[in-house]
Amino acid sequence: MDKLKNNWFSEACEMWPGATFSFEVKKILHSEKSDYQDILVCESTSLGKVLVLDGIIQCTEKDEFSYQEMISFLPLCCHKNPEKVLIVGGGDGGVAREVAKHPKVKEIVQVEIDAKVIEVSKKYLPFMAVGFDSPKLKLHVGDGFEFMKNHSQEFDVIITDSSDPVGPAVNLFQENYFALMKSALRPNGIVCSQAGTVWNDLELVSNTLKFCKNQFPKATYGYATVPTYPSGQIGFVIGSLDSEIKFDEPQLVLTSEDEKAMNLKYYNSEIHKAAFVLPTFVKNHLA
Amino acid sequence: MDKLKNNWFSEACEMWPGATFSFEVKKILHSEKSDYQDILVCESTSLGKVLVLDGIIQCTEKDEFSYQEMISFLPLCCHKNPEKVLIVGGGDGGVAREVAKHPKVKEIVQVEIDAKVIEVSKKYLPFMAVGFDSPKLKLHVGDGFEFMKNHSQEFDVIITDSSDPVGPAVNLFQENYFALMKSALRPNGIVCSQAGTVWNDLELVSNTLKFCKNQFPKATYGYATVPTYPSGQIGFVIGSLDSEIKFDEPQLVLTSEDEKAMNLKYYNSEIHKAAFVLPTFVKNHLA
Repeated sequence: MDKLKNNWFSEACEMWPGATFSFEVKKILHSEKSDYQDILVCESTSLGKVLVLDGIIQCTEKDEFSYQEMISFLPLCCHKNPEKVLIVGGGDGGVAREVAKHPKVKEIVQVEIDAKVIEVSKKYLPFMAVGFDSPKLKLHVGDGFEFMKNHSQEFDVIITDSSDPVGPAVNLFQENYFALMKSALRPNGIVCSQAGTVWNDLELVSNTLKFCKNQFPKATYGYATVPTYPSGQIGFVIGSLDSEIKFDEPQLVLTSEDEKAMNLKYYNSEIHKAAFVLPTFVKNHLA
Repeated sequence: MDKLKNNWFSEACEMWPGATFSFEVKKILHSEKSDYQDILVCESTSLGKVLVLDGIIQCTEKDEFSYQEMISFLPLCCHKNPEKVLIVGGGDGGVAREVAKHPKVKEIVQVEIDAKVIEVSKKYLPFMAVGFDSPKLKLHVGDGFEFMKNHSQEFDVIITDSSDPVGPAVNLFQENYFALMKSALRPNGIVCSQAGTVWNDLELVSNTLKFCKNQFPKATYGYATVPTYPSGQIGFVIGSLDSEIKFDEPQLVLTSEDEKAMNLKYYNSEIHKAAFVLPTFVKNHLA
């Protein structure tokens, strides 16, 4: 908790030197060191409850819906029939909450490495941990990497909701991880991984996309705005085994009534298309 | 300069309480109090040179192109023939730099209230102040509000590149400002104003859009990502006297060669369309 000064938490990281985002803390709800990482849950004055892992903001009550909806619905809606979904990571429950909303999803398997994150989220972050209550979900505590070695050709969609590539998640940004996911997919399967931001680390985005492209016939990069993440956005690398796929043409098109019924606050079918439209400097770099 | 501690500058404002963005300062290049505001120019360790007015970051060398290109090219490319353009504010020169690139623009008039901002930008921020060198430009020091009272039906596009609605720019967010701009426009004219962000102040966005809609037959809201602005983005309210206009269909469609020739690093014709696609919670609130 050395970064908490005068009730302000500052997020500093080697990944974005010389710039930092800070928020005012009303109360520290929980602080512990698990087997994998430092876990901190705060009540903030302006962002609601905040989950911090290893000093990096994972989600705030104010804006978590944007990330959770987009990392879930972008790949799900790219797939014609996403019946069985694997979530790697996502220990707060927010991605499970979103995936369970999709009408074609019948079965969700989630593998989170840190039981403490699940426990803390259930206690302090019920707006996300509600995802664990879905009858569609089977939750395993363990290493997603190891899990997939024993599950080949089983999933339609694999979503990797990881922390940044420093600490326990570093293996999830390597090419062999994309190869492993490929082996765990059914035909025409799709993967979607948190993949950093173009403003802070265009090389990370570029490399992650390259690893995905090396393994999948089609791959792309999209993004969502999340104000409390560094640079105010977060990106996703999406790969598909379907070589005919058009990522910007959602297979499930939602009406305004659907958006309301599914309580979607960020995702809609138009923003699905727009998520893949990139600024010129990014488009040229990733070409 | 009371906000500079241990060589870090923190941007705090009543508009976004409880959260702040900070950057590390290598050197303060200039600091003064003009007749209108506190002016600070820093060399930062990770964002290049930074212009700060009244404690709020106006632009950083790293990402200013995003804002300047979008506030200029969104309205210019919505117009069939934007020959004569008025810029209100924009004392750093960045908007003039971008407007001058558009092939149909023949004449640019700029009215900036604070001569000191122009002077300081010319000395320390030449990558933006280069805009003042355009032979298309006539630069006036004065009040844009007063200027427009004497210039009716003169401009095809009016761009308001203002600071936030605290301090000298507060009048530029009122309905009578939109009425005045309307009177200064030629038939089918277009206005574009900096209008805050949906994550920090949805009511400000909503009110500004309402004022614009009350005066113009067509109006909309679009946005660009700018990591060093609060919430990582900035929005624009655009109004048009052409009731047949489709804001998301640019009249000038740029090729990759055009983007390169015009040194556009953010704007392209696809991102023009995507800029108007809004998250569900914003779409519903502004409907």
